[in-house]
Amino acid sequence: MDGALVLWRAIHSNFKVDPVKHALSVTREQDFSAWYQAVISEADMAEESGVRGCMVIRPWGYGIWERMQKLLDDRIKATGHENCYFPLFIPLSYFEKEAEHVDGFAKEMAVVTHHRLIQKEGRLVPDPDAKLEEPLVVRPTSETVIGAAFSRWVQSWRDLPVLINQWANVVRWEMRTRMFLRTAEFLWQEGHTAHSSVDEAMEETLKMLEVYRSFAEECVALPVIAGEKPENERFPGAVATYSIEAMMQDGKALQAGTSHFLGTTFSSAQNIRFQNAEGQQELAQTTSWGMSTRMIGGLIMVHGDDDGLRVPPRVAPYQIVVVPMLRDTDEDAAVLDYCGELVTELNRQDVFREPVRALLDRRPAKAANKRWGWVKKGAPVVIEVGGRDVAGGNVSVIRRDRLYREDGKLDSQVVAKADFLGAATGMLEEIQQALFADAQARLLGNIDRSVTSLDGLKAYFGSAKKPGWALVQWAKPTGAALDKVVEWLKGEKLTLRNVPSDAEAADGLCVFTGEKAVERVLVGRSY
Amino acid sequence: MDGALVLWRAIHSNFKVDPVKHALSVTREQDFSAWYQAVISEADMAEESGVRGCMVIRPWGYGIWERMQKLLDDRIKATGHENCYFPLFIPLSYFEKEAEHVDGFAKEMAVVTHHRLIQKEGRLVPDPDAKLEEPLVVRPTSETVIGAAFSRWVQSWRDLPVLINQWANVVRWEMRTRMFLRTAEFLWQEGHTAHSSVDEAMEETLKMLEVYRSFAEECVALPVIAGEKPENERFPGAVATYSIEAMMQDGKALQAGTSHFLGTTFSSAQNIRFQNAEGQQELAQTTSWGMSTRMIGGLIMVHGDDDGLRVPPRVAPYQIVVVPMLRDTDEDAAVLDYCGELVTELNRQDVFREPVRALLDRRPAKAANKRWGWVKKGAPVVIEVGGRDVAGGNVSVIRRDRLYREDGKLDSQVVAKADFLGAATGMLEEIQQALFADAQARLLGNIDRSVTSLDGLKAYFGSAKKPGWALVQWAKPTGAALDKVVEWLKGEKLTLRNVPSDAEAADGLCVFTGEKAVERVLVGRSY
Repeated sequence: MDGALVLWRAIHSNFKVDPVKHALSVTREQDFSAWYQAVISEADMAEESGVRGCMVIRPWGYGIWERMQKLLDDRIKATGHENCYFPLFIPLSYFEKEAEHVDGFAKEMAVVTHHRLIQKEGRLVPDPDAKLEEPLVVRPTSETVIGAAFSRWVQSWRDLPVLINQWANVVRWEMRTRMFLRTAEFLWQEGHTAHSSVDEAMEETLKMLEVYRSFAEECVALPVIAGEKPENERFPGAVATYSIEAMMQDGKALQAGTSHFLGTTFSSAQNIRFQNAEGQQELAQTTSWGMSTRMIGGLIMVHGDDDGLRVPPRVAPYQIVVVPMLRDTDEDAAVLDYCGELVTELNRQDVFREPVRALLDRRPAKAANKRWGWVKKGAPVVIEVGGRDVAGGNVSVIRRDRLYREDGKLDSQVVAKADFLGAATGMLEEIQQALFADAQARLLGNIDRSVTSLDGLKAYFGSAKKPGWALVQWAKPTGAALDKVVEWLKGEKLTLRNVPSDAEAADGLCVFTGEKAVERVLVGRSY
Repeated sequence: MDGALVLWRAIHSNFKVDPVKHALSVTREQDFSAWYQAVISEADMAEESGVRGCMVIRPWGYGIWERMQKLLDDRIKATGHENCYFPLFIPLSYFEKEAEHVDGFAKEMAVVTHHRLIQKEGRLVPDPDAKLEEPLVVRPTSETVIGAAFSRWVQSWRDLPVLINQWANVVRWEMRTRMFLRTAEFLWQEGHTAHSSVDEAMEETLKMLEVYRSFAEECVALPVIAGEKPENERFPGAVATYSIEAMMQDGKALQAGTSHFLGTTFSSAQNIRFQNAEGQQELAQTTSWGMSTRMIGGLIMVHGDDDGLRVPPRVAPYQIVVVPMLRDTDEDAAVLDYCGELVTELNRQDVFREPVRALLDRRPAKAANKRWGWVKKGAPVVIEVGGRDVAGGNVSVIRRDRLYREDGKLDSQVVAKADFLGAATGMLEEIQQALFADAQARLLGNIDRSVTSLDGLKAYFGSAKKPGWALVQWAKPTGAALDKVVEWLKGEKLTLRNVPSDAEAADGLCVFTGEKAVERVLVGRSY
């Protein structure tokens, strides 16, 4: 039984067999929330910036984001979208045009009111003579300002579809923040498209939902449930909102990407009109879809363990890190040469249709500290090379996905260098698969399908065993009836996640109202 | 004599031979400034956003920026730097710590004062109850907030150097804006490093100057003069500022990248201290360096012509665009197949150590419109394929760097498809070189080295012939003496550009003061 399995059993059976002294200062069992912060801090991913609600994303965290950006951007471009850049600032008047949208964001908008500072009594203050005539909002999302551009770009059906995307920072003034999951400023991509028909816009909405699903599962090894959000969880101004939902190791849900069919909400507010093939004026049908640095929070809470982060190879800034074990002797030069060759040969190989990313860690620090540093950062493979390895033509291989042997000792395997070179890319593919399979088993194993009543829901989420999600049948109430359901759920600290696209048809009664059910909806705690 | 040369002669001899009807609505001769705006607009690169001072960067403009980002990022990483992300907002108090720095930026800072909007008499207004205790500045540059992070990261000499970079948006509230050259919000990268010694920090400063020079020349085909800025042109807070200066076709200078040695200015303000190897506390020596979307403005004004933009192949979003000439007949399918194969085979080839970027333009528009659209956008090679080409196994090749024959007709050459496939990457390399060589000849041919007096300067810059720059000897005055020089230059609408690193030693008298000269400095008009 490997280390990961020992841990898995320990966690999921509330049965403590763990003999291992772990690298992190706190375990998931002890305090999941403190553990999450510890991973971020001890893996040098990010830190508090001193600016309220804003974080500093450090190289390891940002490197993961760059990998995510590249892989998602490739998919966004492959589906015909082009990147643009739109202004950070949005005039207040743009928001006034769409009431529901502004209601959704007004409470958390950063507002620029001045364009100059002056000295006053030894302090810097906004210059009262440099007050803006119209205050500017720092974009919380860009439907309004991009809609204004679309209205300039679109005249005829021949100008449609418009398929664009933007990588940008956005600001939502959250009162309670948590690194990567909820920060005042965050990084994301936001896609915006305009179409000549409802069908085409819906097709786009679902196509991008599928891009998010496949990106999350294939690249981040994050199994997700794709489906439509209930009415109360829709994006402000959307006709329909779809999401991918991932399950964290504490059983909570994380919304990891959303895709919205906006109908004519923004085209009527921003006047995006076109002449159709019959010569008549029509409003365009628009969509928007976004994925953010939140995904990194999901990666941590799905793949992390008590030794830190485990990064799936496809999104790891470095996939294989080589640590030379130097002893300040004449032998060191040979060890460094041997390591250098190894890295060069690895970087020449391809994996996942890209060059392998191998690093020689030459920093002036103790080899053991470096090893544990990379374990905490979650580099998929750590190679150690000492004088003895050089003499024997070997390397010592540590796989981050199976760190410990059954006896609780670190599983460092000595193999011939040539054998490792031949097996390295296969090993990376295997690690990618193993992380996904683990998470997939956990997701599927923790969706309860047996709950048929409110008491049942209470019992499931109140049980001592860590709950996951409940997939329940419901009558899809709307308006006041839905409000009542949401209110009840709120009392239990529960939320409606989504109606899974691939759930079987309803065949029973609504768990909330007792009426005939029309579909199945996921219920869970959430981030 | 090819078309480009005809144009070149025409422009530089004030001798009008040009028989060509050009694609752009205005020529460089007619109005250089209007021509610049016309290129941006007619090549669909960018547009006014409706938000004061902010532009929308459209796919072709943003695609060029993405290429620049990738190529520069590779070089920044290859020199040992890692990417991070720091907050958009900077508390006022961070600026108060460094007087010279804040003086340099206070007049143009966007200030966030509220974090919520409310409805009042039917309008949205900042909520008076949501006023920030300490206003936040939208970053104009990040020395202060990154310095604060460095002070957390650096304790010992072992923590140094810190070598980081950030790709971000910044805001400087410029009153007079011009697309790409000067906008309230712009995109850039800013590198920030901390070192244990002055020598190492200076080495870094010059290393990054060289990275900018080689990037500009090798990737953007933009010949530049690298050198140190005079004291009056230093970055606020810098001990020394270096720049690369490019010459536009109107003879004006554009500062295309800067690298600053900051000494202990920011380490003392932000308290970046380390224990040196001898156990003593020292202030770190820091640097910063930046390059922005301004580079796109430089690309336009160096490589554009009266038919629009000409994009060097290394930074072109598409290097080869294939336009099928369809006639709504049965032949069309064969033409499309033929074009599709061509693009597939091109994309399989490598150029500049990357895959060729070829595009099949399938949009529903007339072939002639598409051709001229790509000419205006400056795609390096446009291929047209009609039924006759398919029958003959040919393609029609238009090279953007030599658009016209001597007789003023479009130079479209019919060549065998197989020959074109064999020659395509060589052609792209040749175009890259040709654009650089043209610009280099113009730069070197328009630096006057003969001026030895103020009257000479006046005469050179007042001449009917379009002036370039003057490289003059000077005594490197400082303080009030320098102010006097700068004042005089200002009266002539001239500026000091930089002291070229590779200029020969001074051997005469200062053109400004008549004292013995110590070095040579470039004087010119500038953007």
